Amino acid sequence: MGSEQQVTAAGNEVSASFLAAKKRSDAVQEKLDAQPDTFTMLTGDRPTGRLHLGHYFGSIKSRVELQNRGVHTNIVVADYQVITDRDTTDHITDNVLNMVLDYLAAGIDPKRTMIFTHSSVPAENQLMLPFLSLVTEAELHRNPTVKSEMEASGHALTGLLLTYPVHQACDILFCKANVVPIGKDNLPHVELTRTIARRFNERYARNNPVFPEPAAILSEAPEIPGLDGRKMSKSYGNSIMLGSTAEETAKLIKKSPTDSERRITFDPVARPQVSALLTTAGLVTGRDPAEIANEIGDSGAGALKQYVISSVNEFLAPHRERRAELAQDMDTVRDILEDGNKRANAIAEETLNQVRSAMGMAY
Amino acid sequence: MGSEQQVTAAGNEVSASFLAAKKRSDAVQEKLDAQPDTFTMLTGDRPTGRLHLGHYFGSIKSRVELQNRGVHTNIVVADYQVITDRDTTDHITDNVLNMVLDYLAAGIDPKRTMIFTHSSVPAENQLMLPFLSLVTEAELHRNPTVKSEMEASGHALTGLLLTYPVHQACDILFCKANVVPIGKDNLPHVELTRTIARRFNERYARNNPVFPEPAAILSEAPEIPGLDGRKMSKSYGNSIMLGSTAEETAKLIKKSPTDSERRITFDPVARPQVSALLTTAGLVTGRDPAEIANEIGDSGAGALKQYVISSVNEFLAPHRERRAELAQDMDTVRDILEDGNKRANAIAEETLNQVRSAMGMAY
Repeated sequence: MGSEQQVTAAGNEVSASFLAAKKRSDAVQEKLDAQPDTFTMLTGDRPTGRLHLGHYFGSIKSRVELQNRGVHTNIVVADYQVITDRDTTDHITDNVLNMVLDYLAAGIDPKRTMIFTHSSVPAENQLMLPFLSLVTEAELHRNPTVKSEMEASGHALTGLLLTYPVHQACDILFCKANVVPIGKDNLPHVELTRTIARRFNERYARNNPVFPEPAAILSEAPEIPGLDGRKMSKSYGNSIMLGSTAEETAKLIKKSPTDSERRITFDPVARPQVSALLTTAGLVTGRDPAEIANEIGDSGAGALKQYVISSVNEFLAPHRERRAELAQDMDTVRDILEDGNKRANAIAEETLNQVRSAMGMAY
Repeated sequence: MGSEQQVTAAGNEVSASFLAAKKRSDAVQEKLDAQPDTFTMLTGDRPTGRLHLGHYFGSIKSRVELQNRGVHTNIVVADYQVITDRDTTDHITDNVLNMVLDYLAAGIDPKRTMIFTHSSVPAENQLMLPFLSLVTEAELHRNPTVKSEMEASGHALTGLLLTYPVHQACDILFCKANVVPIGKDNLPHVELTRTIARRFNERYARNNPVFPEPAAILSEAPEIPGLDGRKMSKSYGNSIMLGSTAEETAKLIKKSPTDSERRITFDPVARPQVSALLTTAGLVTGRDPAEIANEIGDSGAGALKQYVISSVNEFLAPHRERRAELAQDMDTVRDILEDGNKRANAIAEETLNQVRSAMGMAY
């Protein structure tokens, strides 16, 4: 008991704010189940490479489900986030278009979901200026996610990374999203978005609030390990890409490391590599990884890999077929993005006009 | 000698960079005198109140001269700068329109000079994001002007004040200004703009630079004291407003403090208040303040004030007449601003397209 009371003030704060967020998340989830069409959602991805199975199970699958249940769904291709911690935009157009291809192949319907690129919406980006006036430098510095991302990048903290929670607030608030599905790590960003919305309304729009205070829905999706048991990451070469061919996938899984024990068992702590293969197979088949382990038993790693290869490729076959078909006509893919950008611009201009008018800056 | 060598490294740096800037300023001034039409200039003001005599002699007079000599002149009404260190935008439309009135009355010709409001140009504001990626947080922090403005405001450092040199860079670079007339205090801002332009070109536009590296022209204008000898500032109530009536001006000058010595002499150090009155009279008449002091001699402060009142009111009479005439038709004033904003948007969109294309972000 004594030691529990000795946690730091900061620790208490984080955990209290996490519990409050979790409670809000559960309450919102309940309302969302009852009345999905009263919700507007914003999610997105950084176009730094291709999407992989981790993206699919971690977020894209649930976006498609929410879209299909009638939630107003918005997806930002967060291209300016690419330069928060790197000095180049090489291959960015290719990454963006392949991301759109994967969204469409996964079931995102551009008629129901607005897909747009951050850099294509000037009126959204302008919100950066009034929003930056609503936060202090100290608040920007306190953000633990910004700090850890900066450390992970090995790059000096740029002005863009420091202010990144503020442009995420622009993404969320310009389209008046009231719900943002996130992992726990992104909770401080959504908290800052709520602060910005609240302060803007208090300062400039007391009688007629311009922005909702969006709630975070904390993702229940399990962390999906890479094939080697480490975090799934493009730079580790341990990720199964949605858009790879069946052959590329087979090759990648075959060369993934296992251990010297022949009998296959599911034990993520003691046997992370074998267990990562089992988790992957479990996700794509909907089966219990331990049951798959039992079934393979003494047949060993070779048999396990064969099972993972065939189940992953079977699972991804329809996605890849749709993807290949869509890729035949890239003009249409470009048109879909252009249309999303047009809609985003119309919404952003409307919101910016409300902001100007609330601030008395409509000349 | 010894003590001079003991200046800090930072002091050396500032002074070396100041000397370099002064040298560049002189060289640019020479070129500008020879070929004014090869220069594009950006200046501006914060619309926190009315313009006063300090603004006129400190910058507006020289803007009009540069405009008339054929320099491409741009004036930003920096409305977002108002909220860098305050929580309200009260009276901002009124302040903006009165500022435009003063520009026009002072001889700014909207056919030759583009007048625009910062908040009206989304494509300009979008430049904040790529530009923020080009500077580190440490560089933002090193800016001495930001620090002193923060301290003067008595307000916590907002994200907007911290990043203010970056949005000033947006103002300067979106219209590709290659010359910025400034006071010494603003030198660090222009240095950062040069850094941003250089890094953008190096990183994304090696073969076809998008941005010029603008040179600062250091103002030669004397610091104009307020009527009480302190810095001229609206909050001290010691400023002669361009748009006040002759009666208001007379009243203000009459109640300005002097000292108990009857004989009028020009001695800014020992007699700041009397000398401030003499400086003001000197500026508006083009005479030497010491000569005015001699002329008044033993006639005392009352006579001095009468002289200041009549010379200031005589000097401002044509300005005030034009101002009153223009104020009869505020629709035209609004149209002038709207037209400036349209032109600024067209230029900003063109520049943003070049930025997108250099960064490979044209989808």
